[in-house]
Amino acid sequence: MASPPSFLSLLLLLNFVITAATISTTNSSTAMLRTYPGKHIVRAKSNPRCESWKFAVEVNAAGSWKSVPGTCIAFVRDYFNSDRYLSDSRTVVNYSLSFANSVKFNRKDKGRNAWVFDVDETLLSNLPYYRVNGYGSEAYNNTAFNEWVNKGLAPPLPMSLRLYKKLKHLGFKIFLLTGRGESQRNVTQRNLLEAGYFGWDKLIFRGAADEGKKAAVYKSEKRGELVKEGYIIQGSLGDQWSDLIGFALPNQSFKLPNPMYYIP
Amino acid sequence: MASPPSFLSLLLLLNFVITAATISTTNSSTAMLRTYPGKHIVRAKSNPRCESWKFAVEVNAAGSWKSVPGTCIAFVRDYFNSDRYLSDSRTVVNYSLSFANSVKFNRKDKGRNAWVFDVDETLLSNLPYYRVNGYGSEAYNNTAFNEWVNKGLAPPLPMSLRLYKKLKHLGFKIFLLTGRGESQRNVTQRNLLEAGYFGWDKLIFRGAADEGKKAAVYKSEKRGELVKEGYIIQGSLGDQWSDLIGFALPNQSFKLPNPMYYIP
Repeated sequence: MASPPSFLSLLLLLNFVITAATISTTNSSTAMLRTYPGKHIVRAKSNPRCESWKFAVEVNAAGSWKSVPGTCIAFVRDYFNSDRYLSDSRTVVNYSLSFANSVKFNRKDKGRNAWVFDVDETLLSNLPYYRVNGYGSEAYNNTAFNEWVNKGLAPPLPMSLRLYKKLKHLGFKIFLLTGRGESQRNVTQRNLLEAGYFGWDKLIFRGAADEGKKAAVYKSEKRGELVKEGYIIQGSLGDQWSDLIGFALPNQSFKLPNPMYYIP
Repeated sequence: MASPPSFLSLLLLLNFVITAATISTTNSSTAMLRTYPGKHIVRAKSNPRCESWKFAVEVNAAGSWKSVPGTCIAFVRDYFNSDRYLSDSRTVVNYSLSFANSVKFNRKDKGRNAWVFDVDETLLSNLPYYRVNGYGSEAYNNTAFNEWVNKGLAPPLPMSLRLYKKLKHLGFKIFLLTGRGESQRNVTQRNLLEAGYFGWDKLIFRGAADEGKKAAVYKSEKRGELVKEGYIIQGSLGDQWSDLIGFALPNQSFKLPNPMYYIP
């Protein structure tokens, strides 16, 4: 005979009903978004030329680049579908965490220690889009990309989610600073929540006044506002060089890999 | 019966004799230094964990690190003794060159366009030293390293030498900005000349007033002086993050790889 439903199982059922209700209104997904990569990953093949192209891109020697070179499309595809991408991200997140653990939470600083996260290719992965759009080898298509964004189906990057939760636990104020526009606020918020990100302090979008600004300028200005409000930006995580340069910089910035696209 | 010595083996013998002769005179340094790497290079083996460690180091996520992790010594050795190091350097130099070619030499700016080079692991390679000292896995030994520097036998990095010559040809003013101390001026000058570098505009060393300064601060201050003197620092080439950050930054900085040591 089945045991009578416990309070816990009722709670779980209630949670399921609420989740299902939430999801039925998001017009698409049926459960929490599955974490990247979702399927079995393969061992990456090394290709010295493309390894060097990736190196140049990651240290910003390539400057403002438009698309993945034709000879490196397979390399980039293998990189993202192998243990390489996860391994690089894991290593960067481990360093981020050991830095975060070293940050002192004095009484005076309480509630002022902050961390800034980028969104695309940092908290959320657009790989499902890029998989069917040439892995960055095709010119950026604003219409097609926004259609994808508006679906709100980008999965979380597992290492970033882990860092996010630990930072919350440590007591950091969490600021999400994205290059996405205000018009994408609702879908982005919903996507983040479904991906497992909860309880951020502010989610900052490009407003009308930020249009046409270079990403590094827009992000510096927004960080500057946080500093003016009294926050101490201890760390940041982002995949672009525009997350690393400019002013009002964090005490330490951490760069995730992205050999797929460059944001000027 | 052994076959008679072929023309090839005679050639090899001749090469050996010349090499031996060269080496016997390099103490007094009469011959041009041989370009890195000097011998046949092998294909690097990929190791996802160490690849990720290298990635983290190159994007400065690892912060101030002390030595190559024990599990990555073989990886670093293979990296430097394979086509990987040369390939990474070549790619960065190619990007540097295409940027340099885009710099306009107006009549007004004539003689003001400048390029800053770091020295160690940028113009000169200390690999002969690190080869017999654990490839960065051992703690930095100031005495032993200075003994090596004072020999003045560091070979040029071939890609950097190529860039140096092209920049001179394009009309850039060339400034060499090194973390070495004034006491090493003579030996460094001689080493650079023997390595094939000629006609720089200024070779800047750490003076007494710079002692104890972080590399990024010292280098920023020295670049600041160049800017005050009227130079437009268009580009720079260096292997350390302290060449990339701070103030009086070049319009574009180019980072060479160095998964062997970090200068704070």
